This record gives sequence, C-alpha cells and structure tokens, in this order.
Amino acid sequence: MTPSWVKEAIFYQIFPDRFNRGSGPIPSPVPVASDFEAWDALPTLRGFKGGNLWGVLEKLDYIKEMGFNALYFCPVFTSTANHRYHTSDYFQVDPMLGGNPALQKLIEEAHAKGLRVILDGVFNHCGRAHFAFQHLVENGAASPYRDWYHVYGFPLGAYSGKHNFASWWNNPELPKFNTSNPECREYLLSVAEYWLHQGIDGWRLDVPNEINDDSFWQEFRSRVKRINPEAYIVGEIWDDASRWLQGDQFDAVMNYPLGRAILGFVGGETLDKDLAAKSGLGRLETLGAIGCSHRLEDLFKRYSWEIVTIQMNILTSHDTPRLYSILGNDLERTKLALGMLYTLPGAPTIYYGDEIGLEGGHDPDNRRGMPWNKEKWNLPIQDSVRHMARLRAEHPLLHSGKYQRVYAQDGHLAFARLHGEQALLVTVNTSAQPWKLHFPLHGLWSRGEEAIDLLHGSRAVCHKGSFEGETSLSPFSLAVWQAVH
Amino acid sequence: MTPSWVKEAIFYQIFPDRFNRGSGPIPSPVPVASDFEAWDALPTLRGFKGGNLWGVLEKLDYIKEMGFNALYFCPVFTSTANHRYHTSDYFQVDPMLGGNPALQKLIEEAHAKGLRVILDGVFNHCGRAHFAFQHLVENGAASPYRDWYHVYGFPLGAYSGKHNFASWWNNPELPKFNTSNPECREYLLSVAEYWLHQGIDGWRLDVPNEINDDSFWQEFRSRVKRINPEAYIVGEIWDDASRWLQGDQFDAVMNYPLGRAILGFVGGETLDKDLAAKSGLGRLETLGAIGCSHRLEDLFKRYSWEIVTIQMNILTSHDTPRLYSILGNDLERTKLALGMLYTLPGAPTIYYGDEIGLEGGHDPDNRRGMPWNKEKWNLPIQDSVRHMARLRAEHPLLHSGKYQRVYAQDGHLAFARLHGEQALLVTVNTSAQPWKLHFPLHGLWSRGEEAIDLLHGSRAVCHKGSFEGETSLSPFSLAVWQAVH
Repeated sequence: MTPSWVKEAIFYQIFPDRFNRGSGPIPSPVPVASDFEAWDALPTLRGFKGGNLWGVLEKLDYIKEMGFNALYFCPVFTSTANHRYHTSDYFQVDPMLGGNPALQKLIEEAHAKGLRVILDGVFNHCGRAHFAFQHLVENGAASPYRDWYHVYGFPLGAYSGKHNFASWWNNPELPKFNTSNPECREYLLSVAEYWLHQGIDGWRLDVPNEINDDSFWQEFRSRVKRINPEAYIVGEIWDDASRWLQGDQFDAVMNYPLGRAILGFVGGETLDKDLAAKSGLGRLETLGAIGCSHRLEDLFKRYSWEIVTIQMNILTSHDTPRLYSILGNDLERTKLALGMLYTLPGAPTIYYGDEIGLEGGHDPDNRRGMPWNKEKWNLPIQDSVRHMARLRAEHPLLHSGKYQRVYAQDGHLAFARLHGEQALLVTVNTSAQPWKLHFPLHGLWSRGEEAIDLLHGSRAVCHKGSFEGETSLSPFSLAVWQAVH
Repeated sequence: MTPSWVKEAIFYQIFPDRFNRGSGPIPSPVPVASDFEAWDALPTLRGFKGGNLWGVLEKLDYIKEMGFNALYFCPVFTSTANHRYHTSDYFQVDPMLGGNPALQKLIEEAHAKGLRVILDGVFNHCGRAHFAFQHLVENGAASPYRDWYHVYGFPLGAYSGKHNFASWWNNPELPKFNTSNPECREYLLSVAEYWLHQGIDGWRLDVPNEINDDSFWQEFRSRVKRINPEAYIVGEIWDDASRWLQGDQFDAVMNYPLGRAILGFVGGETLDKDLAAKSGLGRLETLGAIGCSHRLEDLFKRYSWEIVTIQMNILTSHDTPRLYSILGNDLERTKLALGMLYTLPGAPTIYYGDEIGLEGGHDPDNRRGMPWNKEKWNLPIQDSVRHMARLRAEHPLLHSGKYQRVYAQDGHLAFARLHGEQALLVTVNTSAQPWKLHFPLHGLWSRGEEAIDLLHGSRAVCHKGSFEGETSLSPFSLAVWQAVH
C-alpha cells in the first residue's frame, strides 16, 4: 500500500545548516561551537552557517503559509560535513542542530500544524568518523566491527591515500557498509525503525541503488511499514526506477526526469545548460511541447498510477543549481516551471529558497543561507508559489486526476487532469508570443461548457469540440481552466 | 564538604570489557558487533572480549556478597579502545556495553542494593574519533570547533605523523582539549553534570593534573556539588596531591603512595620490582615497619583527616600489574597486603579479579577476562577479602579512627585506630618467623585490658603497659585486636 497523504503533499526541502538559525527553548544536550561563517556570505565547501532545527521550528508558520504541508530534511544526524551526508552517528541529531530534543520538538510542532516530516536516510555509506569505522581505523583486524565494511587489507588507509576499502565513488571519506553482514544490516535497519518510533513520517533514501541487494530494501520496507503503514519511502533514483517501484521496495522516487522535462520545455534559450550539466541534472535538452509531453507520458505510464501520484516531483535540490539560476534569472519562466510542477501528477517539492528566487550555481553556491530580510525576496515568485499551492489544495483533481495530453505544438501545451466526468485543463505557453488559445478538445468538455481560468479569471468557451479562449495566454505563462456549469 | 558515604565505602574497580558478558533485558539501542576474542584467551592490546554492563548487573549479588558497596568503572562511554580512555562520545555509553539504557538500569539496581557508582571522567583529552576532533580533521580551519583543541596548523596531521596539535603524551590518538575555550569548557562541564543527573555518585578523574588550570576544577567541583553535595570527586594523582586537596577541587585522590608503602613492606624478597617498575607504581622500595609507617604517617598528616578517611586507597589498578603477580604469587603476602588495605584509614579499592587471585603482568595482561569458573579462583584470598570487608563494616573505628603507630621494628608493625577512648590494634608480621607479640603500648589500653584478635580469636593481655600475645603472630599475617571488657 502507498501512503495516501503524499497525494496531497507539497514538500519543502530544507538544508538544515542554511535555512535558519534559531535558539530553542531547550539548549542542546551537547554544548557546541558557535563560531560560524557569516549567514549572508557565499557558502564555502567546508564551512558552517549554524542553521538548526530550532530555526526551522521558528519558521513553521512561514512554511505553512507558503502552502507546504510536508518537510523533507537533508540529513540531520551528527556529521563532520555541513551537508551531513557524512554520518557519524545515526542515533543522534547533530548537536549543532539542537540534538535529539530539537528534532523531537520539531516533529511534535510540525504534526500539530499539519506538516509531515521525512528525513534523509544515508544507508549505503557512513562518514569515516562513524564509530564503527573509527573502530576499524584504530583497532584494525582486532575490531569486532571488521566485517561491517568491505576491507581489502589492514591497516586501513582511510587517511593515507592507500585506499583499501570500498567507499562511495572511491571517496575514502565515505566508507561503504557491508549490508550483507547481519549485524551491520541490523544496525542500519534499526536506525530506520528508531526514527519512525520517534514519529517521522518517512525516509528519503540517499543513493539506494548503490545497495545492490533487493532483499535489503524489501526488509527495510517491511520493517518500516510494520511501524507505520503510512510512512513514505522515497528513493534517490535519478533515472528509471522500475526495479525499486514494484511495490516491495520504495513507494516512490525523486522525480528528476519530470523536472528535466519541465526545464527543457520551459527554459528555452534562457536555460543554462552548462550550469545544469555540471550537476546531477545532466545535460538538459530543449524540448518542444510534444517532446515534453511524451516524456511526461512515459513517466506516468512506466509506474502504477498510485505511484505516479506520490512521486516526489522536483525541479531542483541541494544537488542541482538553483531554479532561478538555471532559468537565467527569468522571472516568468521560473513562475511557469513552478506552475507546471504544481499542476502535474505527483507531489511538488521545492528546495528551500527557490520560492523566493534565491540564486546559486554549483555546490556550495546552491546552499546559501536563506535570506530572511524580505527586501531580498522575489515576491512575484513567492506569490505564485503560494497561489499554486492554494489551487492544488482546493482541487483534488490536481492530486489524482489522470494526465491527458490535449494539445502540443512547439511552445504550446495543453493537458487535462481527469477523474471520471471531472476535468481541469492546463494550458502552457513557453513561447515569447501570446498564444491565441484555439485547439481541439478531443472529447473533453463535449457538452459545450464554458471555462474559467482559475489563476487569472479569463474565460473560454468550448465550441464545436474546440477550446477557444477569450483572451490570449501571455508568453511564458500558464492557465488552469475549470468548466463552469 | 566531603561525601560522608565514602568513609564506609569499599570500592570494586571494574574494567567493563573484561568483567562479565551478559545479555540484558533491553537490547542495546544501537546494534553492535559481537565477534569477540575468546574470554579465556590472554588479552591483546586492541582486542575486545565483549564484557558489558549487563554482565555487571548479573554479578551485583556477587559483588555485594564480597563486601563491596561501591563500584568504580573504568570509562564506559563510546570509544574506539577496549579500555575506553579514547572517548568518542561523552554522552553515550558505548553501545557494546549496552548503551545508556544499560547504565541507567545498572545505576538503579546498584542503588537498590546499596551500591554506589562512580564513573571515570577523561576530561583532559578525547579520542581522535571524537565528533569535535573529527570535525577538525575533515573541515580544518572551516570548522567551528577549531578552537576546541590546541592546533598549530592545518591540515591536521592526526594520522600522518605530522603531529601539529597538542595531545596527551604526544600521542596523536588523544588530542588534548582546549579547556580555556568557553564552549569546549562548557561541553566538558556539562558532561559532568549530565551523568550526575543520571544518578551517578561521583567521578574518578583521569590525569586531572594535565589540565593545569585550578579554575577549571573549581568550577567542576561547584557544578558537581550543586547537583549532588555527596558526589565523590577523586583525582588520579599518583604523588603529592596537596594542590588539589585544599577543599576547592577534589575530595580525594587515588592513593597509590599508600599502596606502594604496603607493597614495599609486605612484599619483601617476593616483590617483583621489575614488573612494578614498568607500570605507574614505579620502582618499589623494600621497607621495614618503621619506613612503612613513616610513609603512612606522612600521608595521613599531609591532608586533612576528613580527606584521609575518604582517600581511594589502592594496591593495584588497570594501570599496574596484578597484586598476586607483583607479590610473586605468594598467597600469604597477598592476603596480608589486602588485610593492611582494609585496616588503614581510607576507602579500600580492589581491582576486579584481585579478590580471587587473578594473575597478570603488564598491560594488556593485567586486564584478563574475569574467570567465572570457580575452580580458577584462589579461594583463600577470596575468603580473606570477604572477611576483612565484614570486619571493616562492623567496626566504624576502621573507617574514621585515627592512625597511631604503636610499635615498628623490622618486619613487625603494630598500629592503633583510635577514636576517643576506643581503639583497635592491628599487628602486622611481614617476616618469615612467628612474631612473639610483646611490645609497649605507650598508654593504649592502660587499664590492663585483655584483648581478642577479631580475625582468629587469639587472646592477649595488656600488662604493665605492654601488649603480650598468648600465641605468636604467624609469618606474613596480621591480627586485629579489640579490648575485651
């Protein structure tokens, strides 16, 4: 079974060191250093800005007001890295983030406000500061943890350049766990269970394809779902995810292909392909409406419809440049890409700051401190995100209505979200000219309805099987049409 | 103020990896490796035998039955080392020991049985696996923890041999904390507070003289005593401890000089001086009765009497060879040394296994797995320890009675423990011949009392100011005389 709440979810991805620095009601159980980099300075690869979970707690009302109802946190456990993908201790929230009490309080408050919380689970590898790996570094073959990793010889060359153990992308900072060792496996699975017992609503799984063992993820799923059948398990799979979406492993994946299709269609000549290419997004292709829709249709057919509606749909993340920057700081296209994200099947997911037009290129530039001075915010983008969230919340068709391409030509795309007799029609204009809306409806609204654009109040008629807008659709914009009876 | 309970305390020092392996009612919150060295095999420097706190819990009745009423644990926090002096996380009991729940349960059960619990606090340095130090290893000067250590340059040469930071005895595995950094200081002091809040009865402080800052230990004391005025603070100071025993820092110290005096007097030609010399005990001197007593008197005069009665008196520890081995496997001398320990002012402290004659030389041989097969036990030593504990418990004079030398010549020592009109007289014979007891009492028992030896039931008379035993005191033995009215 799939977690039903995700159909209505709009995720906000938070990079904890960079979102907001707060001071909680409870001091961290572990006193920490506080000599941080300036919040507004450009980030550095190894520097810390001191954002924490208390800071998130203080901004829950902002998040909610923006229409988000689910939080996806980049890793929060104790780590040596500012991004915390180098885990030192899977049972402790980093003391710099406020420690376990801060997460506990955050989960409580988020739930009280109707927000779900999912955490980033890095189970393929740990940081070399992890206690079990350090045990090997210090004790070599005498350590009882010797079989928790893939070691080719002792002493370990963890810091020497003599790289004699398996690690993620051959990075000695990230030793790969031996998930076929029963104790190591139990350790990792108990991490998953522990945090579910603490109240989280699911796991985003980091590089899960690197654990080339379906039985691991099958057991992971069954133990997670035993604790909370509604827990969301979403894998970081950048391409085809069929292997993991058969119902026995993940509920969904991070839907980068959908994001690439939107960006390729909306971005046009503003698309900074070189910038994107240096990230996980790869080389983006400029797409026309038909190319974009074909890609979307392929994604929607590839997996069961239940899965499609709970995919984690993303344009950007901590692993890509910023949306506004990829789109050449083009306001209209940025709003348009976000508009498509909110009207397609699957859960829209916004990387913190994208909703106020935060800029940024490669890592670490894409992880800037969130500006809290509103003068630095791009208010039109923010208004648009807020507006689209409200639209999505008010129209269940946008959650689970089927996707049907209605019209696609050059920069003009029209698609419907359908459920039984009900339909919404979305028209997208990615061209620089107004689009005089006039296209065949192929049976949609065949009774000759009138329609109204829920975003701008424009009107249209369905006449002799064709859709005819009273006004043109502006360049780089979209409209969401509802039949008026 | 000094903790009054220590006057009646008899400590049992436990090396957690080697005392007993148990399986608790609660699994460790963190699954761990269990591929340990054989319990009975000689220990190795880096190997683990898998003793844990559940194992201690299972043996509390044994410990209590042996007359111990206080436990001193070598470090229990997460560590890469089997001795756990390389601390990785001061807020977590090592998962291999059962984690925090095991310590919590152990404290509860120990208290319910009338046993106190003190922990080993290593505040001068941590293990290089500690999260803050690893933060520096990975992030260099970008880490906000950069000032928590004494770093002379980046990148850190923690594993390279380029040793550019302060560490204990120049061992790069043990980076020294910068206790003058306010955050680091707060971190360490909060560790002390945290475990007191969890119910421990005090701290044994590892190498506290290395923190050359009285204000640190003054603040330590005041914060500890604020939580529990009866908490015991005992420093590992091997020699003169006047600096720390002025009332504003420690309550007491580990009384190695007292142990050295006993060993020098009792050991005679059996004393394995070479073995002792390779440990912290240093080169032991053979002492006659007068030499021994002078040393004791010096120790008893050097500090206030309140402190003398709560000193942690030790013959051996995890830092010395085993008692039985230092004394050349001589049963009588071993019993005699223990007998003196139990009859002198200060809290007797027995290193686990010494009470059953466990042998062992240098580290790691002095840290063998405690044998639980009773056939391997030296029962006469064990009986003697049990007996002396009972004697001490029954005679408050042995807790707080003043020490007064009565007679000292060659291998013959008689001393009294006095309080007002009351006295016990202890006679010690470290010679190979029976000692025909006959010596002047210098005013003790001046009314011509008879006396009885509480250990063997022998009798004596006090006649014309002299003590006259009815029978001789056997070679290498002691008697404890009480006046019979």
